[in-house]
Amino acid sequence: MSYQHYRLEELARLVQGELVGQADLCLQGLASLELAEPQHIAFVNADKYVEQAKVSKAGALIVTPELQQQLDTHQNFIVVANPYLAFAILTHVFERKHTQTGIESTAQIHPSAIISESAYIGHYVVVGENCVVGDKTIIQSHSKIDDFVEIGKECFIDSHVTITGEAKIADRVRIHANTVIGSEGFGFAPYQGKWHRIAQLGSVQIGNDVRIGSNCSIDRGALDDTILEHGVIIDNLVQIAHNVKVGANTAIAAKCGIAGSTIIGKNCILAGACGVSGHLSIADNVTLTGMSMVTKSISEPGTYSSGTGALPNAQWKRAVIRFRQLADVPLTQLQKRLDHMQTQIESLESTLKLRK
Amino acid sequence: MSYQHYRLEELARLVQGELVGQADLCLQGLASLELAEPQHIAFVNADKYVEQAKVSKAGALIVTPELQQQLDTHQNFIVVANPYLAFAILTHVFERKHTQTGIESTAQIHPSAIISESAYIGHYVVVGENCVVGDKTIIQSHSKIDDFVEIGKECFIDSHVTITGEAKIADRVRIHANTVIGSEGFGFAPYQGKWHRIAQLGSVQIGNDVRIGSNCSIDRGALDDTILEHGVIIDNLVQIAHNVKVGANTAIAAKCGIAGSTIIGKNCILAGACGVSGHLSIADNVTLTGMSMVTKSISEPGTYSSGTGALPNAQWKRAVIRFRQLADVPLTQLQKRLDHMQTQIESLESTLKLRK
Amino acid sequence: MSYQHYRLEELARLVQGELVGQADLCLQGLASLELAEPQHIAFVNADKYVEQAKVSKAGALIVTPELQQQLDTHQNFIVVANPYLAFAILTHVFERKHTQTGIESTAQIHPSAIISESAYIGHYVVVGENCVVGDKTIIQSHSKIDDFVEIGKECFIDSHVTITGEAKIADRVRIHANTVIGSEGFGFAPYQGKWHRIAQLGSVQIGNDVRIGSNCSIDRGALDDTILEHGVIIDNLVQIAHNVKVGANTAIAAKCGIAGSTIIGKNCILAGACGVSGHLSIADNVTLTGMSMVTKSISEPGTYSSGTGALPNAQWKRAVIRFRQLADVPLTQLQKRLDHMQTQIESLESTLKLRK
Repeated sequence: MSYQHYRLEELARLVQGELVGQADLCLQGLASLELAEPQHIAFVNADKYVEQAKVSKAGALIVTPELQQQLDTHQNFIVVANPYLAFAILTHVFERKHTQTGIESTAQIHPSAIISESAYIGHYVVVGENCVVGDKTIIQSHSKIDDFVEIGKECFIDSHVTITGEAKIADRVRIHANTVIGSEGFGFAPYQGKWHRIAQLGSVQIGNDVRIGSNCSIDRGALDDTILEHGVIIDNLVQIAHNVKVGANTAIAAKCGIAGSTIIGKNCILAGACGVSGHLSIADNVTLTGMSMVTKSISEPGTYSSGTGALPNAQWKRAVIRFRQLADVPLTQLQKRLDHMQTQIESLESTLKLRK
Repeated sequence: MSYQHYRLEELARLVQGELVGQADLCLQGLASLELAEPQHIAFVNADKYVEQAKVSKAGALIVTPELQQQLDTHQNFIVVANPYLAFAILTHVFERKHTQTGIESTAQIHPSAIISESAYIGHYVVVGENCVVGDKTIIQSHSKIDDFVEIGKECFIDSHVTITGEAKIADRVRIHANTVIGSEGFGFAPYQGKWHRIAQLGSVQIGNDVRIGSNCSIDRGALDDTILEHGVIIDNLVQIAHNVKVGANTAIAAKCGIAGSTIIGKNCILAGACGVSGHLSIADNVTLTGMSMVTKSISEPGTYSSGTGALPNAQWKRAVIRFRQLADVPLTQLQKRLDHMQTQIESLESTLKLRK
Repeated sequence: MSYQHYRLEELARLVQGELVGQADLCLQGLASLELAEPQHIAFVNADKYVEQAKVSKAGALIVTPELQQQLDTHQNFIVVANPYLAFAILTHVFERKHTQTGIESTAQIHPSAIISESAYIGHYVVVGENCVVGDKTIIQSHSKIDDFVEIGKECFIDSHVTITGEAKIADRVRIHANTVIGSEGFGFAPYQGKWHRIAQLGSVQIGNDVRIGSNCSIDRGALDDTILEHGVIIDNLVQIAHNVKVGANTAIAAKCGIAGSTIIGKNCILAGACGVSGHLSIADNVTLTGMSMVTKSISEPGTYSSGTGALPNAQWKRAVIRFRQLADVPLTQLQKRLDHMQTQIESLESTLKLRK
C-alpha cells in the first residue's frame, strides 16, 4: 500500500527521460501492463509487448522513442533509451520507506554495544557485547546480533536473522528474514568410530552492497574467515560452508550450495540449485546453469552445465536403463569397430568385383 | 502426550464405521501396529499387514470386513470400507488441541491492527500497522506479522514465521515454523558490471486451505503478486520465487524450487527436490518425480522425470565417462551404419552363394 | 575475539605432545599457516605444507617428528603423531566459552517446566508446559521450546530454534540457529480431489552427542517417532521427513533430504545435496557422493553415486541430446550386432581366401 503521489514530470526527471503528455499527471505506483489502472505507470521494453501495451489502462508508459510511435493509443509517456532500467530506478521511488529511527523499548542492548542514533532497532532484537551498528542501519524485530558482531551503515537486516561468529558486515548490506550468518561450520574429525567436533574459530566477512536472501546459512570459518566480497548477491535457501570465498559481484541463485574452502571468482553467475564441491577453485566470469554439479575446479571462463532435463517418464526410464548399460559399453570403441568393419566390407566388395 | 479418552463406539460413529466388540472400550490414542498397547487403536489397510496385526497388542483395530475375518486374534474393531481414511479422520480426534485465545501480554500489537477476539497471539509476536487477524486464528510465539498483512480465519501460524510484503492470507491456512512469506524477490538489473536492486512492489496471495511447511521462502512479486491458489500444500525448505503462480490443490514436496514467473497448473504433484526454471508454464495434472530438472514448459498432463539414480561408484564412474563421450558419438547414426553394413554383408553373402 | 592466553607447555600437555623450545611462550590463539602472527600456533599435517610453514609467522607449530626436522626456520613446536587431531583438541581450548547461567528476566517459562539451575535460558526464550531442561544446557535467545519437550544436559540450542512435537532430546546435543525440530510431517490423504491433513501424533527422539546445523527441518512422526540415534551429525538446510530413522554416527552434509519412513544405517556418510526417496532401507557403512539420487534400497556397504558432473555448455548440450536418444538405442544389442557382423565378415574373408 503506497501513500505517495508523484507527478509525471517528477518521475521523468528522476530517470532523465523525456516527458510527453500531461506534466502534472498524478501517479501512485508502478504496475504491470496487464493489471495497471489509470493511477499507475507501466513500462514497455520490447516490441513483443506492444499489443499488450495498447490495451493497457496504465495512465502513463515508459517507452523508447520507437515504441512510443507505435502506441498511438496513449498520450502520456516517459521516453528513455532503456525502459527496463528506468523501471528499476522508479521501483525505489514507489517502495514503502522505513523512516523510524531509535531503539524499541523491548530490545535488549548490551551496555558495551555502540549503536548509531540514526539506526533503527526493532522489537525484541538482542544486541550483544561490543557490537557496532552503523548509521541508518535498520534491524527488524526479533533479530539476534551476537557478541562482537559489527554492522556498517545503511544496512537492512530483516526479522529473525541470527548473526553470530563475530561476523563483520560492511555497508549497504541487505540480509533477509530468518537467515543465519556466522554459525559454526561443519567441522568434525573422525576418531575411533565417532565424530569429534572441531570448534570453529574463524569468522565471516561481508563486503559492501552484499545482498543475502531469506533462510540462508553462511557459516563462520574454521580458522580463517568465510568471505563474501563487495557486490555479491545471494538468493534464498543458499548454503555457504566454512571458509568459502565468493568473489565480487557474483550472483548466486536460490538453493545453491557451496562446500567448504571453495573459492568462487568474480562476476560469476550460479543458477538455481547448483552444488559445488569443497576445496575447488572456480575462475572469474563462470556461469553455471541450473542444478549443475561441479566436482572439479574450473579454470576457464564460460558456461558450464550438468544434468539431464525432464522427459516423459516412460522415455526417461528407458534412457536411464541405457545410462547404466553405458558403464559397460565401450562407446568410442564401437565407432572404431564400425570403421574397421566398414573397411573390411569395402575390401571384400572390391575383391568380389575384381573376380567377376 | 494426550489426556483424552474416547469410547470405541464414539470413534466408530466419528468415522461412520461399524462397531464390533466392546462398545465402551476406553482408548487413549492411535498407534502403529508394532508399538500399540491395549489403550491404543491401530489400523490395517492391506493384506500384507495381517501378520503384524495378529500379534499387535492394540486394544482395537480399524479394518475392512475382509480383514476382520482374518483377525480372529482380536475382538474389538471398527469396520469401514477405507481404514486409511478412517485413520486420517481419527488423527484429528487425538491431536492435542490449542484452546487458548487472546493476546499474550508480551506481544506487540500496533494500535491500528484488527485482531479477532477468538484469535490467539503468542508471546513476543509483533503485529504491525493495519494488520487483520481473523476468527480462531492461532499465531504462535515470536512470529512477525508486518504492516498491512491480512490473515483470515482458523489459520495456524507457528513460531518464528516472518510474514511481510503486505501478504494476504485467506482462511484455514497453516504455515509452519521459521518460514518466510513475502520477502523481497531476487530482482536485480545488471548495469556497468554491478547488480542494481529492483525494489519488489508486488505482494503474496495465499488461498484457502493452503499448507506451507517449515523453513520455506515464498517471495513477494515484482509488480503483480506471487499466488498460491486454494488447497495448495507445500512441504519444508521449499523456494517459491517472485511471481510464481501455483494452481489449486497442487502438492509440492520438500526442497523443491520454482524460479520466477513460472506458472504451475492445478492438481500437480512435484516430488522432492525438483527444480523448475523461470518463465515456464506447467499444465494441470503434471507429476514430476524426485529431483526432476524442468527447463521447458510442459503442456501435456502426465509424469515427467530426470536424473539417473545412484549406482555403485565404480560403475557410475564408467557411465559418466561414457556420458561425456556421448557428446561426440552420433548414436542414431551408429544404428544406421549398422543397418547399412548389415545390408552390404548380406549382399556379399548372396553373391558368394551364387558363385559357388 | 579471544582473551585467553596459554603457555606453550600447557598446550603441549593438553594434547600429550612433546614440547620443543620456549616453555613459557605465550599463545593467544590458533591460526592458519598463512595468516598466523607470533601470538598464534598453527599446525602442519603433511609434507605439502612444509614450504608454507617455513615462511609462516606463527609463534609455534604443531608437527610430527619428521616435519619438525624439516622446519629449521622455527624454534617452538609441539611434536605429536597426529597434528590434525591435536589441532582439533586445541580448538576447544581457544573457543570462546559461554559461562552465564540462569534464566534471563525476559524469558517466559511455564510454571510446570523444570529447568536446571546450571542451565542458561536466553532473552525472549519461551519454555512451555512440563518441559525439562538439563544441567549446563544453554538455550540462546528467542528459541521456542514447546510443551512437553525434554532436553538433556550439556546441550547447546542456538537462537531462533523451534522445538515442538513433544520432542525428546538427550545429552550433549547441539542444535544451530533457526532450525525446526518436531514440526508436523507432510501427511496428507488425497480424497475427492483435495488434500486432507493427517494430524501427526508421533514425536522426535534425538540421541546423545547429536549435532544439527542451521535452518534444518526435522519433522515429528505420524504415529511412531522420527529418530536420530547417538552421534549423528547433520549440516545445514537438511530435511529429515516424518518417521525417518538415522543410524548412530551417520554424517549428513548440507542440503540433503531424506523422505518419509526411510531408515539410514549406522556410520553412513551422505555428501551434500543427496536425495533419498521414502520407505527405503540404506545399510550401515554406505557412502553417497554429492547430489546422489537414491530411489531404491541399498543393502551392501560401499560408495554409491549418481548424476553427471558439469561440462562446458556446448558439449553438455550434445551429451543431453544423445542421452534422450539413448531411450531408443538398444545399446547392448549394438554390441551383439557388431559381434555377429564381425563373425559374418570373417567368414566371408575365409571363403574368399579359400577360393583364390
